[in-house]
Amino acid sequence: MAWTLGVEHIADLARGAAVLGTGGGGDPHIGALLATQAIQTHGPVQVVSVDEVPDDALVVMVAMMGAPTVMVEKLPSLVELLAPVRAMEPHLDRPITHIACAEVGGVNSTIPVAAAAALGLPLVDCDAMGRAFPELQMVLPTLTGVPASPMAFADEKGNTGVLRTIDNQWAERIARVACVEMGCSIIIALFPQSGARLRDTMVVGSLTQATEVGAAIIHARDTNTDPVARVVAELRGRELFAGKVVDVERATTSGFARGRSRIEGDAGTLALSFQNEHLVAQLDDEVLVTTPDLIMVLEHDTGEPITTEALRYGQRVRVIAAPSDERWHSPDALSMVGPGYFGYDLEAHRFDGTVDPQTIDPQTIHMQTVTSLEAAR
Amino acid sequence: MAWTLGVEHIADLARGAAVLGTGGGGDPHIGALLATQAIQTHGPVQVVSVDEVPDDALVVMVAMMGAPTVMVEKLPSLVELLAPVRAMEPHLDRPITHIACAEVGGVNSTIPVAAAAALGLPLVDCDAMGRAFPELQMVLPTLTGVPASPMAFADEKGNTGVLRTIDNQWAERIARVACVEMGCSIIIALFPQSGARLRDTMVVGSLTQATEVGAAIIHARDTNTDPVARVVAELRGRELFAGKVVDVERATTSGFARGRSRIEGDAGTLALSFQNEHLVAQLDDEVLVTTPDLIMVLEHDTGEPITTEALRYGQRVRVIAAPSDERWHSPDALSMVGPGYFGYDLEAHRFDGTVDPQTIDPQTIHMQTVTSLEAAR
Repeated sequence: MAWTLGVEHIADLARGAAVLGTGGGGDPHIGALLATQAIQTHGPVQVVSVDEVPDDALVVMVAMMGAPTVMVEKLPSLVELLAPVRAMEPHLDRPITHIACAEVGGVNSTIPVAAAAALGLPLVDCDAMGRAFPELQMVLPTLTGVPASPMAFADEKGNTGVLRTIDNQWAERIARVACVEMGCSIIIALFPQSGARLRDTMVVGSLTQATEVGAAIIHARDTNTDPVARVVAELRGRELFAGKVVDVERATTSGFARGRSRIEGDAGTLALSFQNEHLVAQLDDEVLVTTPDLIMVLEHDTGEPITTEALRYGQRVRVIAAPSDERWHSPDALSMVGPGYFGYDLEAHRFDGTVDPQTIDPQTIHMQTVTSLEAAR
Repeated sequence: MAWTLGVEHIADLARGAAVLGTGGGGDPHIGALLATQAIQTHGPVQVVSVDEVPDDALVVMVAMMGAPTVMVEKLPSLVELLAPVRAMEPHLDRPITHIACAEVGGVNSTIPVAAAAALGLPLVDCDAMGRAFPELQMVLPTLTGVPASPMAFADEKGNTGVLRTIDNQWAERIARVACVEMGCSIIIALFPQSGARLRDTMVVGSLTQATEVGAAIIHARDTNTDPVARVVAELRGRELFAGKVVDVERATTSGFARGRSRIEGDAGTLALSFQNEHLVAQLDDEVLVTTPDLIMVLEHDTGEPITTEALRYGQRVRVIAAPSDERWHSPDALSMVGPGYFGYDLEAHRFDGTVDPQTIDPQTIHMQTVTSLEAAR
């Protein structure tokens, strides 16, 4: 069902997307500022459901690519937001009709809002992951063969590029090195899809869900109920752990914010590993939950989501988990986003305590989070 | 004056361009194979002088970018050669009418021949350097404000990209990291220029000159005269040194073939430093010649040019020098291609023994050849 996204929804959307973003997606306040500015200048955004998108619509995703650690110091402008869309247009056979989100993650849920407002185009109530992931090929459309390219990128200096790649992994590889060279934060437009195709490839309703999660946190605070419990209920998840952050190791390497944190509580010590997003939660020797399921860190009392680059010593937090879209648990999906891809010699542990069969192709393990972190020291 | 470049000219052109390429530009035999194949398939190439190019012509340079050390193992196909030209076309306001060389250097003098043959377009008798240099912004058109972009690149796998950058240094930076990611050897199309502009920005007649130098070497051999002396006479240069290669250090780092060689002879030990091309010739403690003037290594008896990646222990060689195009000695040019840019704390020493005033802006010294080489160990 269509609804109008105004300035009054931005805070809820940004907060809810920061929860679903599983620690990635960058500082939600920055994305909120940008979306608010765009709506104030260009008017509110029409959010349409995937069912309302015509079959012959042309939907493009707009996102920030790079390390959230850098983005907090380099807010993109509306000009930068539109540059990749403009650069992509000559490579499409018809005009772009709709904008979509690549992920629900702080900044990457609100940047498409800003882009849609500035372009005067409707935003589709969906995203390509149902969470956030660190690499651009890590979207459900990749699993059904939707090409990321033609994809375009732009930096704040005025440089732009358009790529046509043989597969989505190559789009990631080339865009990533360009991103690093351009300062570790660029805006990208990618995955042009028809409306007909979009319906089969995306996670439906995730913008609405994120906004509802954000609103639920505030409602719980206002009514003196537990915001964390409300989020767990909204996401049909469970609470894993409560404690105090005692250690955070973090490095920005190869364009990613990689690291590990340790949280001490009554139940032991929980270790969280991340590459932009939280990927593995381990309690002492026991792996509790891994990617692709969602691992989220919330402030203990207020339920405020804490992104990986905002984790600090001394924070009192609760760690929760929730199921990912079921499509992420197929063998193909696990070889793309399972723990093995990120360099962890682990089977995928689901949030409900079950374990996916080991389906990781060792050939695909070319990103060694832990190794990279250690090499960066 | 226009002439027709057929298969019979390729060997001379490739040999002469390998001389003028000052050690860079890759194995001339590889480029010769490619040009021969293209002419055999598509017919000979019309070479036109810059005076014959209409003012409203649209001239594009086609070149190989990357490390010659890699290219010798990865011969590009005609499909790969045409891909960047095709990718660039939608970004131009009119059809491409002519092809030009970015440099005279082994492969990069014959790749444009192959591209012109395959496209059925004339080739302009000029190049943008009058020698070879390792980075794409290092062309005379940069000095007069001609933008490198829209520029396009393509690899042998089928990936392509088009860049629009705010200056030519950014074109180099983004294309270079993409090049490294794509395997250290890509084909690029860049510097679209009108015929009117071309006349003021290029080194005129360099294709003819390279072909004549190549023919002179063979003629000298056939007539039992000294080929090296003939090259020196053709280029109005001088012979610096004769001896035996006793040491070559070489590393492929950041997409370049960087290194140093030492040559022992009666006059002492000559050290040659290179980044794809020879940049500094030093006899014991005395700097003899530096970039931008030409430093060339020829086989002792046959005058066969030896590229930097082909330098080997035990080769008996003669090292000669010749003046670069005079425009390379302006202060702006020296800050772009003088010894300081490559990390050498030297004034530019001309081949005739004079020294250019120190004009290097320390800010521009961001490529430290020697440091990079040592870091790669």
